[in-house]
Amino acid sequence: MARWEPNARQRLVRAALDLFTEQGYDATTVNEIADRAGLTKTTFFRHFSDKREVLFAGQDIHSRLLFDAITTAPSSATPLEAVSAALDAITITFTDDRREFSARLRLVIAGNSELQERAAFKRGGLAGAMTDALHKRGVPEPTASLAAELGIHAFYRAFDQWADPTNQQTFTELTRHALDELRAAAATLG
Amino acid sequence: MARWEPNARQRLVRAALDLFTEQGYDATTVNEIADRAGLTKTTFFRHFSDKREVLFAGQDIHSRLLFDAITTAPSSATPLEAVSAALDAITITFTDDRREFSARLRLVIAGNSELQERAAFKRGGLAGAMTDALHKRGVPEPTASLAAELGIHAFYRAFDQWADPTNQQTFTELTRHALDELRAAAATLG
Repeated sequence: MARWEPNARQRLVRAALDLFTEQGYDATTVNEIADRAGLTKTTFFRHFSDKREVLFAGQDIHSRLLFDAITTAPSSATPLEAVSAALDAITITFTDDRREFSARLRLVIAGNSELQERAAFKRGGLAGAMTDALHKRGVPEPTASLAAELGIHAFYRAFDQWADPTNQQTFTELTRHALDELRAAAATLG
Repeated sequence: MARWEPNARQRLVRAALDLFTEQGYDATTVNEIADRAGLTKTTFFRHFSDKREVLFAGQDIHSRLLFDAITTAPSSATPLEAVSAALDAITITFTDDRREFSARLRLVIAGNSELQERAAFKRGGLAGAMTDALHKRGVPEPTASLAAELGIHAFYRAFDQWADPTNQQTFTELTRHALDELRAAAATLG
């Protein structure tokens, strides 16, 4: 029988990022991550398929949050208003105590091409979840995928700002501002 | 001394795609690709770092074409006009005899998550090349990255249409049309 380990998932994520930061992603093994978290390798593999997936643990949850927020937005909401509500649903979970963690995560990913590829795939997946949800609302192409791309672009632009430790604004504020800027720029592209 | 092999690069790409289609990407080795192309493994590694990169051989050339077309567009061109000129520079190289090849390439990538990640990374790289070139023209953020994202979105939408063997239009026509549609949708997002 597997022993229940409190916060195992979160402990593994923290341990992995600490090790990746200290000794590099390539040099770190699953055994070391489990050790550092005070857990077993078996527990690790109950939560993640490999060490890479530890860094992208949030993708399914985020995709689901985006999809649900868009499909349940008021029927009067424009596509971009629905996207904005969806981004709020995610960004609110990035509380201030996660800022330093996110900044380190960003650095680890930037230093490894395999992780950059995985991150690009995640970005596409999040945009795809929003596009699917907009289709479900009856938004036609290419408006649906365009609104989703604008939203995801705003999210990543804001993430870069938020992960800067000198920044004082919330991720939600930054994302809303980035989306407003992109909407204004889109209207004037000519 | 290395023997000069005519069209070695192109022969390797064709052989790789044939084998990936016939027996799957995972099951195919570099040795098999070289054999099928009538070349040696050494020749393979003079052209590509691994079997995966064979499928993304065009990325550097495409990035360069996009960048150059944008930086050399007339100074009177709007950001989106410069992006359109850049897409023309790429799409014109996708002649009709490449349509069937592109359709198979698309299928192989769709069937493998590692290749999908790599493809997502390529997409980001192409958008980045256009964004950099627009910055060099003095286009500010977020207009530069937005115009680049619209352009790359149009390119991939058009690619999906063009790779359909029943489609009769050129890739250039389809991409221009997709960009026009996205521009119109962007102006009405509200």
